[in-house]
Amino acid sequence: MSELNAQWRLAARPVGLPKPSDWEYVEEPAPEPAEGQFQVRLEYLSLDPAMRGWMNDGRSYVPPVAIGEVMRGGGLGRVTDSRHPDFNAGDLVSGMFGIQRYALSDGQGVRNVDTTLAPAPVHLGTLGMTGLTAYFGLLDVGRPEAGQTVVVSGAAGAVGNVAGQIARIRGCKTIGIAGGPEKCDWLTEELGFDAAIDYKAGEVRAELRRQAPEGVDVYFDNVGGEILDEVLLRLARHARVVICGAISQYNADQPPRGPANYMQLLVERASMTGFLVFDYAQRYREAIAQLADWLQTGELISREDIVRTGLDRFPDVFLRLFQGDNVGKLILQLDGDHA
Amino acid sequence: MSELNAQWRLAARPVGLPKPSDWEYVEEPAPEPAEGQFQVRLEYLSLDPAMRGWMNDGRSYVPPVAIGEVMRGGGLGRVTDSRHPDFNAGDLVSGMFGIQRYALSDGQGVRNVDTTLAPAPVHLGTLGMTGLTAYFGLLDVGRPEAGQTVVVSGAAGAVGNVAGQIARIRGCKTIGIAGGPEKCDWLTEELGFDAAIDYKAGEVRAELRRQAPEGVDVYFDNVGGEILDEVLLRLARHARVVICGAISQYNADQPPRGPANYMQLLVERASMTGFLVFDYAQRYREAIAQLADWLQTGELISREDIVRTGLDRFPDVFLRLFQGDNVGKLILQLDGDHA
Repeated sequence: MSELNAQWRLAARPVGLPKPSDWEYVEEPAPEPAEGQFQVRLEYLSLDPAMRGWMNDGRSYVPPVAIGEVMRGGGLGRVTDSRHPDFNAGDLVSGMFGIQRYALSDGQGVRNVDTTLAPAPVHLGTLGMTGLTAYFGLLDVGRPEAGQTVVVSGAAGAVGNVAGQIARIRGCKTIGIAGGPEKCDWLTEELGFDAAIDYKAGEVRAELRRQAPEGVDVYFDNVGGEILDEVLLRLARHARVVICGAISQYNADQPPRGPANYMQLLVERASMTGFLVFDYAQRYREAIAQLADWLQTGELISREDIVRTGLDRFPDVFLRLFQGDNVGKLILQLDGDHA
Repeated sequence: MSELNAQWRLAARPVGLPKPSDWEYVEEPAPEPAEGQFQVRLEYLSLDPAMRGWMNDGRSYVPPVAIGEVMRGGGLGRVTDSRHPDFNAGDLVSGMFGIQRYALSDGQGVRNVDTTLAPAPVHLGTLGMTGLTAYFGLLDVGRPEAGQTVVVSGAAGAVGNVAGQIARIRGCKTIGIAGGPEKCDWLTEELGFDAAIDYKAGEVRAELRRQAPEGVDVYFDNVGGEILDEVLLRLARHARVVICGAISQYNADQPPRGPANYMQLLVERASMTGFLVFDYAQRYREAIAQLADWLQTGELISREDIVRTGLDRFPDVFLRLFQGDNVGKLILQLDGDHA
């Protein structure tokens, strides 16, 4: 007797901000694992800005989600049935299982979740792709040195807050850019950022000048757009701009805005470098051990913004990412009563 | 009895393309050297796109030329009178002497010119700042490897043609982008570029796809604007974009256009890096020796576009840079009859 699965399939390529009708909600019997596969019942879904990009057609670092295909997304759940030698029923696992209740997997990219390190949802955030993205982007691409000035945009978001905290742990002067006084207070009062700039207050240029009088050595950019242009104007000599994301542009219905001040890279002999966390897969173990250690000593604080609801509410919860609502890692906790 | 000097002083900050009235032509007695100085009579003036940027107010890698100040520029001439221990009357020297007939210098940044290596004007081009810019930008910032694909824009210009030839010497597949069939023919037939793309023919995207089917490993950018955006769409994994200049934007009367496709840096884990040749001063000697060696073996061809006229014609000759007229290094050879 198979369980009832529920899934969100991509129905249309969104123009601008996605609408619920860009996906289709489908219920059907959960599939049984074949030899070499296992079945997972999802408990937590990771909601990430990058998912918006996967809905677009065109050349990117992964193929687009096809129309009719289950929406791509990371998640965490329990193995319910296994014909795979390395995974057993009852295992808690995380991986790219898609936006659905039950998933099949051949184990590729799936990791066992050790809840003695941290509670399950943290493994989607600070100990998951989110934290790994912050870790490698900041340390390997940004290469901050103690005493240098690090600016992080989207600093109250999932990746940004971890990147900023790592910069602080490494002895950098750490400045976060975020929207609204609550987020800014959280950064400085809870997370130990040296300063926070509320971009909604409209004084980004003046505040950057005030907070980073000697220039910005590392800029970890999650947002693109005008804020990227403002930070370019304040780069220090030999600065490193780390391109992690550009959430301000993901829902634009016009062509993206390029950084008009990019010639500051020449003025300051600086670089702008893109990266993808997947390229560091061989070092995930090292990074997770370090992040878990910082969590246990309390140097690093993990915050999840968990919305517990039915799978049928996925579009609304996902769109919070683009309303600037979430603080920390946005996670949909699947409520068994609904789906 | 002092000679009559003539100089072009900056008179106004240009808006868009400079007009002759943005400078003032002044004649007055040539100044005598004080102790520790020498006087140079200029014979060749180096005309470079970067000079346009120096006319603007605002933060850059050097202070702007002040209103009333002699227009900044490189040149080559003969020491006419010296009270400096290291320079003697009759020496042929190059340095930043300004746009004038006679200059005083304390020797800072001045190099003796060895015409046994190459004729005098070559020391302003391929063996001067131009060649050094191409050398360090391509090799140190671009880091091309044999067999990789290198694209150079402004490829028939002073820096671009040298950068492309060095890429070819280093065993790269070398593609130049230039305006018009004559320039393109020169690149492929005389300089040994593997291919040339005439951007005026309007098929840059299709031609890049055809000529660089496996993507662009190094892009040496002299132009910015639309061509930068097109090349970003064809980057290979881990590509390096070298920001040397952005001549398409220097005379814009609107804010500069940023590279809208910069998120391809993330897709391809690529970097975009600015540089300034001045940072490599300690290695000029090494680079000039290598460039001179390539010239002598014939692997590297130097082309100067020498306009012999009076100093009073400086504005018209300078503006050729922005009309796409020059091929190779644009030099004004001062005609003694005029100034």
